[in-house]
Amino acid sequence: MRDFSRDHRWLSLNTATVRKQGDLSQIIDACARHGIRAIDPWRDQVAAVGLDRAVRAVRDAGLDLSGYCRGGLFTSDIAHRGEVRDDNRRCVDEAKALGASCIVLVAGGLPQYSRPGSAASKDIANARAQVEEALADMLDYARGASMPLAIEPLHPAYAADRACVNTTKQALDICDRLDPQRSGALGVALDVYHIWWDPEVLPQIARAGKDRLLAFHVCDWLVPTKDILNDRGMMGDGVIDIRSIRAAVEAQGYAGYSEIEIFSNDWWAKPMDEALKTCIERHKTVV
Amino acid sequence: MRDFSRDHRWLSLNTATVRKQGDLSQIIDACARHGIRAIDPWRDQVAAVGLDRAVRAVRDAGLDLSGYCRGGLFTSDIAHRGEVRDDNRRCVDEAKALGASCIVLVAGGLPQYSRPGSAASKDIANARAQVEEALADMLDYARGASMPLAIEPLHPAYAADRACVNTTKQALDICDRLDPQRSGALGVALDVYHIWWDPEVLPQIARAGKDRLLAFHVCDWLVPTKDILNDRGMMGDGVIDIRSIRAAVEAQGYAGYSEIEIFSNDWWAKPMDEALKTCIERHKTVV
Repeated sequence: MRDFSRDHRWLSLNTATVRKQGDLSQIIDACARHGIRAIDPWRDQVAAVGLDRAVRAVRDAGLDLSGYCRGGLFTSDIAHRGEVRDDNRRCVDEAKALGASCIVLVAGGLPQYSRPGSAASKDIANARAQVEEALADMLDYARGASMPLAIEPLHPAYAADRACVNTTKQALDICDRLDPQRSGALGVALDVYHIWWDPEVLPQIARAGKDRLLAFHVCDWLVPTKDILNDRGMMGDGVIDIRSIRAAVEAQGYAGYSEIEIFSNDWWAKPMDEALKTCIERHKTVV
Repeated sequence: MRDFSRDHRWLSLNTATVRKQGDLSQIIDACARHGIRAIDPWRDQVAAVGLDRAVRAVRDAGLDLSGYCRGGLFTSDIAHRGEVRDDNRRCVDEAKALGASCIVLVAGGLPQYSRPGSAASKDIANARAQVEEALADMLDYARGASMPLAIEPLHPAYAADRACVNTTKQALDICDRLDPQRSGALGVALDVYHIWWDPEVLPQIARAGKDRLLAFHVCDWLVPTKDILNDRGMMGDGVIDIRSIRAAVEAQGYAGYSEIEIFSNDWWAKPMDEALKTCIERHKTVV
């Protein structure tokens, strides 16, 4: 297991963590100030500064991209299927231009939340079937661009409105069906926030193996959680045994970035440099 | 599948649903006014009026008890193990006096939340091992009293602070280990709120079979959920396809009560009779 205590060379910053402190250009400048070598930017943050400017800023700063957030939202009614396909193909093009190592996929929940305007449904089994169908289409396109896709299982608390892929097993079952040859084109992004509770998480990480482990995200689960979406904790402030999960991931040969992704009304209220200093310190002492 | 649309003979009221509208005696009176034949009272509500008085009120009203809430909270540090054992034995005695059909078990999360004062831990695997050990002890005692125990898997959002048994599969695995003969002494209480998101829920209900299906609870999952504990929805106000889950449960031969259990700041604010009228109407039209 890698020793993270001496420097933060393996820290990547998911840029949603400081999305209220500045735009993507300002975040990239702050990463340079703090010696952060990698980021995972969100599509809306890239769009806000413009794709060309984002590409230049990433290149000029010499940043790696541990992922690109986010593709997917595959569930919709029939009228919105074209939107799903086109939107995800654009996402692949953007990720390619930015030089991302993979696209993080959030599957989408029930159609009315995933693609607003879609007819309402309570059929989660059907939503899951749709995810697989639309992902297969995106995978064809992404293979053409040599852009790996990483399915992120989200915590079951988000099953209705964000992602109906809720366990590592479920994500890996999809990988096995769509990429049985384990080509590297399809895998998982594992975020400790979403998977720590799962009684099957350790054997499923072993099942994933190095070729399916495309990204690893950290933060913490707070007790109590005050807001179901925007109250993720800074590493060390909650109950997740982060190091045990990282040990399991690294035991499979994962040697990529450890990406900090915190959505938190509390942390968004801190100044940029204070937030990043704490990220770096906790990455050394907790992760 | 039973037709619930013409009357509410299979409706049971979990008394937490109206805990802020009155004490247990007042709730039992209200059930009589509305023709509700069964309840599932909470231990603190029984204690508040006194066990003897609760026993008489239940008997005088001719009520069935579809369960007794709640035993468990099995996780603790070593200093609190005796408390866990004694507390659960008292729970069996109370359930027996009240004539409950089973005790609903909430496993407990990490020790510091399950039994306050316990030393803090982030070791959820160890918590799960403790659940099984303490449950085995309680099961011996409950067998002696012929009181069935129903493990309730709780939504993964409660893994840290309420229950580290979070899927139907996990609960049934425990049942198979502690009661391989399927004696009827141990089973599960399935609440749609906790299990609806689970991609494996339907095959696991089939695996449970009639002899492990001891209780069935209904409410709804709201989008957005404003409070992680106290914002459960009235049936029909959320996204759960309740009838499909009930169909799966009844396909196994379950013929017991359908118990309404809603923790909701919104519904606790309604007058007792209005809340119960809505429960009855939604039980006919949605469940």
